[in-house]
Amino acid sequence: MSQNKERVILAYSGGLDTSCILVWLIKKGYDVICYLANIGQNEDFDAAETKAMFLGAKKIIVEDLRENFIIDYVWPSIRGGLIYEDRYLLGTSLARPCIASGLVRAAIRENANFISHGATGKGNDQVRFELACYSLHPTVKASILSLFSLHSSSYRIIAPWRLPEFFTRFAGRQALFEFAAANSIPLPVSPKNPWSCDANLMHISYESGILENPDQEAPETLYQMTTAPETSSNDPTVLEITFDKGNPISLRNPQTNELITEPLALYVRLNEIAGRHGIGRIDIVENRFLGLKSRGIYETPAGTVLYHAHLDLEVLTMDREVRKIKQNLQQKMADLVYCGFWFSPELDFIRHCIDTSQKCVDGIVRVSLFKGQVRILGRRSQRSLYNQELVSMDEHGGYDPVDAGGFIRAHAIRLKEYYRVKAETE
Amino acid sequence: MSQNKERVILAYSGGLDTSCILVWLIKKGYDVICYLANIGQNEDFDAAETKAMFLGAKKIIVEDLRENFIIDYVWPSIRGGLIYEDRYLLGTSLARPCIASGLVRAAIRENANFISHGATGKGNDQVRFELACYSLHPTVKASILSLFSLHSSSYRIIAPWRLPEFFTRFAGRQALFEFAAANSIPLPVSPKNPWSCDANLMHISYESGILENPDQEAPETLYQMTTAPETSSNDPTVLEITFDKGNPISLRNPQTNELITEPLALYVRLNEIAGRHGIGRIDIVENRFLGLKSRGIYETPAGTVLYHAHLDLEVLTMDREVRKIKQNLQQKMADLVYCGFWFSPELDFIRHCIDTSQKCVDGIVRVSLFKGQVRILGRRSQRSLYNQELVSMDEHGGYDPVDAGGFIRAHAIRLKEYYRVKAETE
Amino acid sequence: MSQNKERVILAYSGGLDTSCILVWLIKKGYDVICYLANIGQNEDFDAAETKAMFLGAKKIIVEDLRENFIIDYVWPSIRGGLIYEDRYLLGTSLARPCIASGLVRAAIRENANFISHGATGKGNDQVRFELACYSLHPTVKASILSLFSLHSSSYRIIAPWRLPEFFTRFAGRQALFEFAAANSIPLPVSPKNPWSCDANLMHISYESGILENPDQEAPETLYQMTTAPETSSNDPTVLEITFDKGNPISLRNPQTNELITEPLALYVRLNEIAGRHGIGRIDIVENRFLGLKSRGIYETPAGTVLYHAHLDLEVLTMDREVRKIKQNLQQKMADLVYCGFWFSPELDFIRHCIDTSQKCVDGIVRVSLFKGQVRILGRRSQRSLYNQELVSMDEHGGYDPVDAGGFIRAHAIRLKEYYRVKAETE
Amino acid sequence: MSQNKERVILAYSGGLDTSCILVWLIKKGYDVICYLANIGQNEDFDAAETKAMFLGAKKIIVEDLRENFIIDYVWPSIRGGLIYEDRYLLGTSLARPCIASGLVRAAIRENANFISHGATGKGNDQVRFELACYSLHPTVKASILSLFSLHSSSYRIIAPWRLPEFFTRFAGRQALFEFAAANSIPLPVSPKNPWSCDANLMHISYESGILENPDQEAPETLYQMTTAPETSSNDPTVLEITFDKGNPISLRNPQTNELITEPLALYVRLNEIAGRHGIGRIDIVENRFLGLKSRGIYETPAGTVLYHAHLDLEVLTMDREVRKIKQNLQQKMADLVYCGFWFSPELDFIRHCIDTSQKCVDGIVRVSLFKGQVRILGRRSQRSLYNQELVSMDEHGGYDPVDAGGFIRAHAIRLKEYYRVKAETE
Repeated sequence: MSQNKERVILAYSGGLDTSCILVWLIKKGYDVICYLANIGQNEDFDAAETKAMFLGAKKIIVEDLRENFIIDYVWPSIRGGLIYEDRYLLGTSLARPCIASGLVRAAIRENANFISHGATGKGNDQVRFELACYSLHPTVKASILSLFSLHSSSYRIIAPWRLPEFFTRFAGRQALFEFAAANSIPLPVSPKNPWSCDANLMHISYESGILENPDQEAPETLYQMTTAPETSSNDPTVLEITFDKGNPISLRNPQTNELITEPLALYVRLNEIAGRHGIGRIDIVENRFLGLKSRGIYETPAGTVLYHAHLDLEVLTMDREVRKIKQNLQQKMADLVYCGFWFSPELDFIRHCIDTSQKCVDGIVRVSLFKGQVRILGRRSQRSLYNQELVSMDEHGGYDPVDAGGFIRAHAIRLKEYYRVKAETE
Repeated sequence: MSQNKERVILAYSGGLDTSCILVWLIKKGYDVICYLANIGQNEDFDAAETKAMFLGAKKIIVEDLRENFIIDYVWPSIRGGLIYEDRYLLGTSLARPCIASGLVRAAIRENANFISHGATGKGNDQVRFELACYSLHPTVKASILSLFSLHSSSYRIIAPWRLPEFFTRFAGRQALFEFAAANSIPLPVSPKNPWSCDANLMHISYESGILENPDQEAPETLYQMTTAPETSSNDPTVLEITFDKGNPISLRNPQTNELITEPLALYVRLNEIAGRHGIGRIDIVENRFLGLKSRGIYETPAGTVLYHAHLDLEVLTMDREVRKIKQNLQQKMADLVYCGFWFSPELDFIRHCIDTSQKCVDGIVRVSLFKGQVRILGRRSQRSLYNQELVSMDEHGGYDPVDAGGFIRAHAIRLKEYYRVKAETE
Repeated sequence: MSQNKERVILAYSGGLDTSCILVWLIKKGYDVICYLANIGQNEDFDAAETKAMFLGAKKIIVEDLRENFIIDYVWPSIRGGLIYEDRYLLGTSLARPCIASGLVRAAIRENANFISHGATGKGNDQVRFELACYSLHPTVKASILSLFSLHSSSYRIIAPWRLPEFFTRFAGRQALFEFAAANSIPLPVSPKNPWSCDANLMHISYESGILENPDQEAPETLYQMTTAPETSSNDPTVLEITFDKGNPISLRNPQTNELITEPLALYVRLNEIAGRHGIGRIDIVENRFLGLKSRGIYETPAGTVLYHAHLDLEVLTMDREVRKIKQNLQQKMADLVYCGFWFSPELDFIRHCIDTSQKCVDGIVRVSLFKGQVRILGRRSQRSLYNQELVSMDEHGGYDPVDAGGFIRAHAIRLKEYYRVKAETE
Repeated sequence: MSQNKERVILAYSGGLDTSCILVWLIKKGYDVICYLANIGQNEDFDAAETKAMFLGAKKIIVEDLRENFIIDYVWPSIRGGLIYEDRYLLGTSLARPCIASGLVRAAIRENANFISHGATGKGNDQVRFELACYSLHPTVKASILSLFSLHSSSYRIIAPWRLPEFFTRFAGRQALFEFAAANSIPLPVSPKNPWSCDANLMHISYESGILENPDQEAPETLYQMTTAPETSSNDPTVLEITFDKGNPISLRNPQTNELITEPLALYVRLNEIAGRHGIGRIDIVENRFLGLKSRGIYETPAGTVLYHAHLDLEVLTMDREVRKIKQNLQQKMADLVYCGFWFSPELDFIRHCIDTSQKCVDGIVRVSLFKGQVRILGRRSQRSLYNQELVSMDEHGGYDPVDAGGFIRAHAIRLKEYYRVKAETE
C-alpha cells in the first residue's frame, strides 16, 4: 500500500451510499480497506468485492458472520425475550454490534487509523456502530491503542453523513447519483424503491420515503421475506421446537420428520417456513435513541416464532417471581440493545443475569404456523413447574383449600385498614 | 321473609354448582337471596330466575352491569394496556370486581348477613371476589358495619368450596349430580364438556378437564366467540378506531360507513367482527395468585383488537420516557388486577397515574382483521409527537447531524472508562 | 441600547468566571444583559450589580427567587423523598431549573437573541441549564419563537466553556486572572480556596482542586453552613415538624414555643438550627450525567432533617404497596432531576403521580437534632394507617391468628413445587 | 426415647414463652427435642440447656451458628446493600432463615415428625421460619419426605400461638406466668421490661408494650448494644475497612494498628467500637408482611457502619448503569428477605445477580465513628472507575467539551418536540 497515506477501514455494503463514501474517502487522500460482513443479507458478495476494488479500495475483506450472529446475538435475544416497545424484535439492533465487532477486529489486524461507516446522522445505527467501537477498543492490544485513543477519540471515526462537508454536498439523492456518474460508480440496475431497507438473517426493515407518512399503508410489494397472509398457504404447518437453557436446539416437523439441530440451518429453515406463512410482519412507530419518533416496517419470520415459543416454555418452567424480575431485566436489555449498548457493563451484567434465569428453560413447544399467526398447540418439559395433580379441580393434590381462606383474609387486613381510615378521614 | 333466619346473598350463575350451593345453604337454615349479574355472558336470565325461585331462593336479583363493565373495568384495562404475563388480557379478572361490587351493593340493600359464592378453593376468583368485598365494606353506610365486621371477618363470607363439610361431601362431580337429582335441581340438558368455561362480554375462558394436560391441543369445538382462522372469512375487514384520552370512542368501517360510538354497542359489534375473523385466541400456561401454574384457553376478540390499536396510538402520541414509566406501572397494574386487588389503594393510585398518562392518547388507528390477525395499517393524531419533517432522511428539519457525534462520544465516556479499567485489572 | 448588536442574556454570578465571560462577550460585539438570581446564596447583590455595570453590561436584573425555589423546587423534592444514588439531596440540581426558568422569562422580556452561562463543559449544570431553556421555549409567546428556534438551536446558547476559542484561551485559572487584570475586572479579595463551591438556600456543594483526590479528607475549614459535630452544641434540640400533603407547614420548638409556618422562613430557620448541630454533611463520589465519576462534599442541613421527617411520616400514613410504587417513581425522579430533566414530560408525569401519593401525608414528626444526627422521637397523624389495637400483642384486634397459617401455607405452595422439581432434575 | 410418641423439634430460646410451649407440648403427649441456635444473642446456653432438660425435653441441641450467620446471611446483605423501607437493616429477618436451616437439619437427623416454634401469630417471624422449612424440605433425603409432606403440610408445623386452644388459654401474659408457676418453670429473675426484644450478632430489636404508641419516645434504658450519643466518647474513632468482592475482609484502626480479618471477630469487634459511639439506632414504623404497620426500635452498630462503607465503595467501583439495575434488585431482595423468602427461587436468582455485580467492589474505605454517626473520610480502590484526570477541571483529560453541546442538543430534540406539540394542542 501507499506509504504516507492514513488508512481507513470502511464498513462497506456494496450499495450506492458506501460506494460513494469509498470514492470520496479515496479522493480525500486515504487508503481505504473495505469490510463487508455477511450476516445473511441477500447480496452478491463477489460482485461487491469486484466493485470495491474497481472503485479503488486497497483491499476488501468479506467475512461470514452468520453463525456468529445467530449464536452470539440472536440466541441471547431469544433467551432474553427481547422486544422493544412491546413490538420490535430488534433485528437491526442485534446485527450492528456483530458487524462492529468484526470491523474492529479487522481494523486492528489491518492497522487502520480510522473507522468509517455510512450510517446516517439521524438514526440509531451510527450510535450502535460507534459505541461498539469505543467499547471494544480498550480490550485490544497496545498496538491499536492509537486508534480511538482517549485523547483524540473525536477524530478517529469518520461518519461522513455527520460531516457538514459531506452532508451538504450530498443533500438529496440526486447529488449522490451525479457523483456516482462522474466517478464511474455503477448505479443500481433496478429502479430505487421509494423507501430504504436493511436486511440480515433475522429480518428486513423498511423505512423512509413514502413510509414516512405513518398513516399510509405499506404496499404489498415491499415485503421480501414473507408471503402475504392473504395469499399464503391454506394449510398450517405444525412444528416442534426444542429449547435447552433457553436456546433453540432443534426444529422438527412431525409430519415430514424433518429435523434440524444446527443453529444457522435451523434459523434459515424456520425463516423459510414462517415466511411462507406470512409470519412476522409489523408496522410500527418507534422511538429512536435520539428522541425522534420514526415509522418502520419489519419482517422477522423465524424470530417471531421463536419469541412466542420461548415465552411459552419460559412460563411453564420458570418460577413466577423469578420471571417477574426477569421481565424487568429483559425490558431494560431490549432498550439497551436498541440504543447501541451491546458492549457495555450494564448489558454484560443483565445478560449474565438473564442467562442464569434460563437454566431451567428446557423442553418442547408445538406451534402451528398459519396466515401470519403463530399458535401454541402444546408444551412439555422435564423441568415444568406445572403440576397437574396440584392444579386439578378433581383432586386435592396436597393442597388444603381451607388455607386459601387464611391467605385471602390475611391479604385483606391491609385493605380493610386502608378503606376504614379513608372513610373516617374523607 | 322468615323471621329468625340469617340471610345470605349468593352470587348465583344459574348453573349446577351454584344451584347446589343454593339448596345446600337453604338446608343449612339460611334465607338465601340470589344475585345474578349480567355481564354479557350467554345466559337465559329469565330461566335462571325461575330456577332459583323454584329451588327455594327468597328472592333473585338480576342486574345488568354490561355498560358498567365496559366503561369502568374494560376501558381502564385498554387505557392501561393491561396484559398479564405478556399474553392474557384479563377478561375474568376484570369481571370479578364488577360483579363483587354489585353484590356488595345488593348485600347492603338487602341487609344480608353473609355473602356466598361458588368459586373454587384453588383458583383466583375466590380472591378477586372476597378482596373486593373486604375493601368495599368500610365505604358503605354504618348499617352494614356488622357485615364483614373487623372482628368477625372470617365468618362473614361463606365459600362452600373451602369448607371441609362441603368439599369433602362434593368431591368429584358425581356427588353434585346425585345431590341435584335428590333435590330436584335440574341437570344441564346438554352433556357436560370435558372442560369448564366462564364467559362475559370481554372473553370466554376455558380450563380444567382435558385441558389440564398442557401438551394436549384444545379441540376446535371448544371455541364459542371466534371462528377458526382456517374457516374464517377470506376477506379482511378494515376498521377505523378512534380513541380519546385512551378510550375507544368510535368504531367505523370505512367501506360500509357503519359507525358506532356508544361504548357497549361498540364493544359488542367489535366482538362480532373480530370473532368472525378468528381473532383473540390464546392457549397459555399462567401463574395463579396462589402459586400454582394452570393452563387456560381464552378468546378475547374485541379486547385483542383494542389492545393493539391502543398500543399503536400510544406510541405515536406519548413521550418515550413517559411511556417507559407507564410500562412499569401497567405491568404492575396487570398483576394487581389478576390477583384481585382491583379495589386497593395501590390500584387506585396506579389507575390515577395511568389515566394521567392517557390525556394525550387521541387519534385514529386503521386496522385490518384477517384470519386471526390484527394488522395495523396506519394511524394519525392531532397530538402525534411524530414529526415527519424532523425524521425525514431528505431534510435536516431543524436538526444538526453534527450534534449526534457529541451525543455518541459523550455516551462513550463511561464505556471507555469501564473497559479501560477492566482491561487493566483483569 | 446599541442598534445593530445582538443581545445576550448572561446568567451572572458576580464571580470571576462570569465577569470574564461578560467582558469577553462584550468584546465579541454583543450587548450583554446580566441576570442574577437570588436563591439564597451568600452574595452582596448590590456590589454584583455595580460590578456588572462597571464592566459594561447594558443592564443587570437581580431577581429574588428564594420563595419560588422553596415552594416549587425544594418542596416537591421533599414530597418526593428525592435522593440521588442513595445519598445526595440534589441541592444544586434543584436550583438550576429554578434559575433557568427566571433566565428564560427575562430573555423573553428583554428580547435577547442568545442565552449564555458560565457552566463548565464536564459538569451537570450545563445540561440542567440548557435542557430547561430548550423545554421552556415552546411554551413562550410567538415573539420569542426565533430564540432557540428549531432550525438554529445549536447557535442560540453560548456556553463559552465549550467553545474551543474560549476554553483554549482560558486553560488554567492563571489565564483568567491575567484577562481580569488586563480588563479591570476586580480580582477576589480573599485568596481562592483550593476547591470550588456553589451555594443556595438548600445547600453548599464543594468540588475540584484538592477534593479531586477521593481518598483525601476534606478540611474542616471548608464547611460553611454546618458546625462540626465535634464542636457543636452538647444539648440536643427537639423540634416538631408538621406536614400537610407532604409539605412542611410548620416548625415548632416545643421548649421555646417558637413556631414558624411561612415556607421560606421555616426553611431558613431550620437551616440555622440544623447547621448549628452539624447536620447534613456528606462526602461522596457520584456519577455525573456525562458518565464521569466525580467527588463532591455537600452540606444540606434543613433538607436532611426534612428528608428524614417526611420519610417517617410517609411510612406511617401511606399504604405499603402504594409506597413501593412511589419508591420506584422517586428513584426515577431523583435521576431525572440530577440529569437536568426538570422541565420534561416524564418529570411532569412523575411529579403528578407523586403528588397524588402525598394526599395522605399529614401529621407531626418529633425530631431531635444533635451532633450531626437527626433522630426521630415520635410521630402522629390523623391519617395514620398504624392501628395499635390491630398490631398489639395483647389483643386480637379483629385479627384471627389462624388465618396466618393459611397465608403462610398458600405462599409455600410455589416454593415447595420449585424445590421439589429442582431436587428431581438436578 | 419413648416408643410410641410423636417427636417434635422445638426452636427453643430459653425464655418464658418457649419454656411454656415445651411443657405444653410434653403435656400434649409429644417427645420434645429442643433446638437452641447461638447466633450471638446474650444468653447463658448452659443454663438454658439445664432448664430444658429439667422441664422434660428429651434432648437439647445447642448449635453455634455465629460464623455461618455472618458469612452466609450478613455478608450477602452487606453485598446487597439491603435496607427495608429505606431504613431497616434486617437483623431479625436475616437470623430467622439461618436458625430455620439449622432446625431443619436437626429435624432430619433426629427423625422428628413435627417442627414447633414460639413465634406469634401477627408477626413476620412465623412466616420466615415456616417458609424456610417448607422450602428446605424437598432438598433433604427421602427419609424425611414424610416430614412436611405435600399431602399433610398443614399438620406438620406446630405454631402454638396460632392454635386457638393455645392462644385462648394464654391470652395475656398473666396466664403464662400462672402456667409457669404451676409447672415449675422458672420465672425470669429480673422484672420484665414493658417491651419485648430479640437479639443476635447483628442487632437487637425492640417492640410491643409501651413502644406500641408510635408517638412515645423509647426510654434511654432500652438500648443494650449502643451507648447514647449524648454520653458516648468525645473522640472519634477512625477505621479502615477493606472489601473484596463486596465482602468486608479486614478492619484496621490506623491509630492503634489493630487489624482483624476473621469475619466473626471482625463483626464482633466492629459492634463494640460502633456501639461505643452510639451508632446504628433507629426508631421506625414499618410494614409487616401481613399488612399491619408496627413500630420497632433497632440497634445495628456494625451493620450500619458496613452498610455505609460498602455503599461508598460500590459507587466508586461500579458502573453507574449497573448500579441502577442493582438498586432495583436490592430493593426487591430486601423486601423478600423481610417477608421470609430467603429460601426461594427468586432470592436465589437475585442473590446470584447481585454477587455478580460485586466482582468489582474491592478497596478500602476510611470512616470516622462519632456520636451516632458514620462519616466517610476517603476511599480508594484498584478497580476505581473514578478518573481524576478525566474529571479534573484543570485538564481536558481526553475529553472534548464540544461533545457535551451535541449531547445536550440531542437530548433536547425530544423535549422541544413535546413542548411544541403541547403548546399547539393545549
